Amino acid sequence: MRIGELSKDTGIPVPTIKYYLREGLLPAGERTHANQVSYTAEHARRLRLIRAMVQVGDLPIGTVRTMLAEIDSAERPTDSMLGRLSGALVAPRSHGPHADEDEVAETAALLRRHGYTRTDSVHVQMIADVLAMLRRLGRPELAAIVDDYADLALRMAETDLATLTALEDRDNLAESMIIGSVLGEALFAALRRAAHATVSGRVFPEDKFDTSPPS
Amino acid sequence: MRIGELSKDTGIPVPTIKYYLREGLLPAGERTHANQVSYTAEHARRLRLIRAMVQVGDLPIGTVRTMLAEIDSAERPTDSMLGRLSGALVAPRSHGPHADEDEVAETAALLRRHGYTRTDSVHVQMIADVLAMLRRLGRPELAAIVDDYADLALRMAETDLATLTALEDRDNLAESMIIGSVLGEALFAALRRAAHATVSGRVFPEDKFDTSPPS
Repeated sequence: MRIGELSKDTGIPVPTIKYYLREGLLPAGERTHANQVSYTAEHARRLRLIRAMVQVGDLPIGTVRTMLAEIDSAERPTDSMLGRLSGALVAPRSHGPHADEDEVAETAALLRRHGYTRTDSVHVQMIADVLAMLRRLGRPELAAIVDDYADLALRMAETDLATLTALEDRDNLAESMIIGSVLGEALFAALRRAAHATVSGRVFPEDKFDTSPPS
Repeated sequence: MRIGELSKDTGIPVPTIKYYLREGLLPAGERTHANQVSYTAEHARRLRLIRAMVQVGDLPIGTVRTMLAEIDSAERPTDSMLGRLSGALVAPRSHGPHADEDEVAETAALLRRHGYTRTDSVHVQMIADVLAMLRRLGRPELAAIVDDYADLALRMAETDLATLTALEDRDNLAESMIIGSVLGEALFAALRRAAHATVSGRVFPEDKFDTSPPS
């Protein structure tokens, strides 16, 4: 198909498609005549994937490029690939005051108690950083939530991996991992907010604080 | 204290503090002499909160301003306040192809089956959008994960609200909600990645696909 059809098929404007071509996110089409380039269903598929990563995952173009390279090079999806993908998803953002060595070691020990086995990663540093920030905000009681969250995250990871291993289409396992990771995160964030609305309706009925003395 | 001390106390550079003052995120200090302005521990506390929202929550300044206004005006934290805060946290981002009316209605029905009671919100539209995107990516089997996620999100919201209602410091309930929401999301995202590393180590041992024929 020509670029106009590709645009119609995917709902992505032609200038955006050209931008992705220039950035190397989308392979060039096949030149069939002097002034005509032809694209395939594979191009449409790749475009929808790019769109999901950019729009829903809010990922920068550089990260999208890294992930697509992983997909294209992956013959055998392995543990280490999942690790690389997950690493690429972590925005290199400063989390402000960093946890010190003791705080990171304590966090790793806490995770091991909850059944985590890989406790030397960048993620553990991030967890320790957030906990340190809660303490520095004078809110150690909010940091206590980490115990429940650690169990919930492990159950969620088991659900994610069970879904991946049940897929019949093993050729696209790397793509499935990325889609699952990016869209799964957006899905869960929206669900969590809907759940907050439900639970807060139970916990804070509208006039609950009406009878309290003014503070 | 003077602005230099405030900077030293919080680890935030003086130009950044001045920027927050200009943007109205931080109340002005008290002018004690012609060329001297004095700040209090309240300023330091507010600065740490702004830093957490900007650095960890990655929130734009406009959103931070909205949330601080909620904190400052909140005498009685109510259900509707939690709703407004949660609404402010949702980035007004296009999620691409939108779910149609039937898809939104189906999503609302699914949530009600899982015990959700508020199913007419912007969050439900977002959930329906992500599910529609998974179907349009040709991955309906990944969308099936929504059932497990819906239960996990509800359990997480119960944990969050239980933590909030257990707080003794009711004066700062609005602030606690925001800190819990912003830092809690960052905490859970990092835990989820650490959990993926643990579970994928079990599920994808390094040579699992070695014996498969090349695809």
